Amino acid sequence: MKILLIGNGQMGTLIRKLALDRGMVVADSFHTETIDRLKDFDQPADVLIDFSSPQALPAIADYIQKTKTPLVCGTTGYDEDARQQLAFLATCAPVLYSTNFSAGIIIIRRILREFSAYLLDNGFEAELIEAHHSQKQDVPSGTAKTLLSEIDPERRLQRVIGRRQQGTRGRQEIGIHSLRGGTEAGRHKVIFFGKDEQIEIAHSAESREIFARGALLGAEKLVRQDKGLYTFDQLI
Amino acid sequence: MKILLIGNGQMGTLIRKLALDRGMVVADSFHTETIDRLKDFDQPADVLIDFSSPQALPAIADYIQKTKTPLVCGTTGYDEDARQQLAFLATCAPVLYSTNFSAGIIIIRRILREFSAYLLDNGFEAELIEAHHSQKQDVPSGTAKTLLSEIDPERRLQRVIGRRQQGTRGRQEIGIHSLRGGTEAGRHKVIFFGKDEQIEIAHSAESREIFARGALLGAEKLVRQDKGLYTFDQLI
Amino acid sequence: MKILLIGNGQMGTLIRKLALDRGMVVADSFHTETIDRLKDFDQPADVLIDFSSPQALPAIADYIQKTKTPLVCGTTGYDEDARQQLAFLATCAPVLYSTNFSAGIIIIRRILREFSAYLLDNGFEAELIEAHHSQKQDVPSGTAKTLLSEIDPERRLQRVIGRRQQGTRGRQEIGIHSLRGGTEAGRHKVIFFGKDEQIEIAHSAESREIFARGALLGAEKLVRQDKGLYTFDQLI
Amino acid sequence: MKILLIGNGQMGTLIRKLALDRGMVVADSFHTETIDRLKDFDQPADVLIDFSSPQALPAIADYIQKTKTPLVCGTTGYDEDARQQLAFLATCAPVLYSTNFSAGIIIIRRILREFSAYLLDNGFEAELIEAHHSQKQDVPSGTAKTLLSEIDPERRLQRVIGRRQQGTRGRQEIGIHSLRGGTEAGRHKVIFFGKDEQIEIAHSAESREIFARGALLGAEKLVRQDKGLYTFDQLI
Repeated sequence: MKILLIGNGQMGTLIRKLALDRGMVVADSFHTETIDRLKDFDQPADVLIDFSSPQALPAIADYIQKTKTPLVCGTTGYDEDARQQLAFLATCAPVLYSTNFSAGIIIIRRILREFSAYLLDNGFEAELIEAHHSQKQDVPSGTAKTLLSEIDPERRLQRVIGRRQQGTRGRQEIGIHSLRGGTEAGRHKVIFFGKDEQIEIAHSAESREIFARGALLGAEKLVRQDKGLYTFDQLI
Repeated sequence: MKILLIGNGQMGTLIRKLALDRGMVVADSFHTETIDRLKDFDQPADVLIDFSSPQALPAIADYIQKTKTPLVCGTTGYDEDARQQLAFLATCAPVLYSTNFSAGIIIIRRILREFSAYLLDNGFEAELIEAHHSQKQDVPSGTAKTLLSEIDPERRLQRVIGRRQQGTRGRQEIGIHSLRGGTEAGRHKVIFFGKDEQIEIAHSAESREIFARGALLGAEKLVRQDKGLYTFDQLI
Repeated sequence: MKILLIGNGQMGTLIRKLALDRGMVVADSFHTETIDRLKDFDQPADVLIDFSSPQALPAIADYIQKTKTPLVCGTTGYDEDARQQLAFLATCAPVLYSTNFSAGIIIIRRILREFSAYLLDNGFEAELIEAHHSQKQDVPSGTAKTLLSEIDPERRLQRVIGRRQQGTRGRQEIGIHSLRGGTEAGRHKVIFFGKDEQIEIAHSAESREIFARGALLGAEKLVRQDKGLYTFDQLI
Repeated sequence: MKILLIGNGQMGTLIRKLALDRGMVVADSFHTETIDRLKDFDQPADVLIDFSSPQALPAIADYIQKTKTPLVCGTTGYDEDARQQLAFLATCAPVLYSTNFSAGIIIIRRILREFSAYLLDNGFEAELIEAHHSQKQDVPSGTAKTLLSEIDPERRLQRVIGRRQQGTRGRQEIGIHSLRGGTEAGRHKVIFFGKDEQIEIAHSAESREIFARGALLGAEKLVRQDKGLYTFDQLI
């Protein structure tokens, strides 16, 4: 598989290393500062993998529209416009967009999707904690936002990012707590506090390699798909 | 509701207190040492609640057969014969048998029932930890055994209760770890260890009152049922 | 021991119950709304125990100055003026002021006092999490503030209560995260995130009774002391 | 620094990689199967680092006696005789022997050394949990044994490795629980269960690199020492 790689942060570096270890070819790589040169890139690639920043999206979008290359996108921090652009690109080529490429997170999402409503309707109150290394930019993490959308898909709960307000907890709140420190690869935990009992659903990544491995696995699955927007969940 | 109560341990004492607080009547109460006098007890009761020990079962069985009184049974440590006797009693009266009367544990069981096979088939390895107060008799807890039967209903895994053996972990093992100390009301956690990631599903009881509350709730639901064997899961 | 009790919240109620169970006398009790009547109270008491709100302090201060009754104060949310007033009262009578009456928290404080500087100087980054029931008023908890003052007595770190800001973690930050839900009696955890390793120091209260027990224990110790300001740590 | 490396397991491999990354020289390396050839090795080395198995010790001992090369030994599973041999080697050369080369574990040990006696004397009951990857040989881990010797240096407690026995917890027990699964780099947690409260002291290694880094750091410190037996604690 021949990969065109966007992003030279920790994830981009890991994906490059892992891809080379597996005998894949990294056709060329760009990052946010050099992304303008992507328009001059004229070799074919089997897949474009993007772990950079939202600023790179316009150049990537031009390239995908022109070449119909399948796109694996793991960049976080997109706004609504950017997400709409990804949906549009999916009408030109297969697009895999995910904020988290671990198999374990997929399971956590399914558990939350299925059981949160029952728990919330039966008096449990949910709080979400996530912990990541000091260098992480997003607060809260993209994965935390994804988990929130599983717990509360219709946004009935009031999202309290970093509780500061004095006074009792509102019945319709959900607290989101972002710990940052050291080299933590990524932990997410949802606690459902009930009357005299608690339920915890937690995921812990021991190393960022799981995300790189997941992105390459996703790429392998994506290149066999028709155009359309895919989640990691659907492909693995 | 008029309750005939068997058991004067911590659970029996709590159920009595909670029942009286709610204006229920505790017709009379027996325990393992006085259970022989149950055969002379001739007042009608709406439900018999048993949180005693397996030794009390024969006397209870005689009473249920004779009177058709609904039976809520939370005693743990039964052997196969005793469980068969409960199944037989369920042909005479409604019988609710459960090793854990908390709503949260029901959810944990459903999660494990639904997701364990997928995780185990995809390379995750499961270990179960439970922690209880120093005075608990059973090792492992009845609830731990119930959770095991959800994780591995066909007993394909080798159950390692208290790992001691040197050497690498067998691929088909499941470790069970029983912590005991202080006044801990009851915690259960299943960890699925994967390749560079982990999933945890945990329940924590803050107080044994949840079990007493659950037993009374179960009793209220049970008295409206036909004869048959019920789980707590089915009634709430 | 004859107790004059201020506060009819959960702690006040528990202290009353526990004191009566132990054969102590509760001379009379007041709360924030009725505190004005304290000035007319003329029976002697061995100790005044206050678990109410900062609004009650002026009336309590008058009473202590007049009667020299030992004061056990577990009210939280005081400002600097109020704390100075407590220090002044300690020149009239023995005063025990603490935000947490558990023996375990004392140990956690000693551990943090002794080891935090070393860890912070060696590249570890600290974050504090606390979880309490939904009805708690203070955010963060009084105990969390006490633990912060042990971790960072000279206030060199920037206290980030509820992280919301995008971007990497500042090297001199300490995050404080307040979870609220259900009936949680009180958990506090400090995580020191290092390079590829983490240290956790945690305390969990299973029930608010430990604080009531601790307050009564503190009262018993306090009544034998000379006037002065005491911490729970010094008395037990 | 020129290193003679014994061991080609995960730790040996990591140390080699890290040493080369840092511009150190790995003079030669041996493992349990090839250790007999060590006697023919005649190049000088600044330090011998051993992460192999107890079987390699006789050959290593001969080499150290002959050459006075400083020895960093991280092999676990030694019996009493082997430990005596290490003590003897320390009369010929500087010897650093440790079951755990992380700075964080050093702190955990100091905390346990200082506070365990107080907690155990005041009614707390201790249990130790450790979790490691599936391929680990030792049960319990060498680090767990080290922590036990800090908690209970005079062996007053009965060590229950893997609790299986029915019945209440003995007041003088300490339970040790060894979880195994996946790729877990190493977690250790001591829980002190008290009356209605718990204290947890925990360490988590995110990657085995911390041990390799620690071993190289120890080696750098050791080569400047006189002969004698050193702990990691003493050198860093």
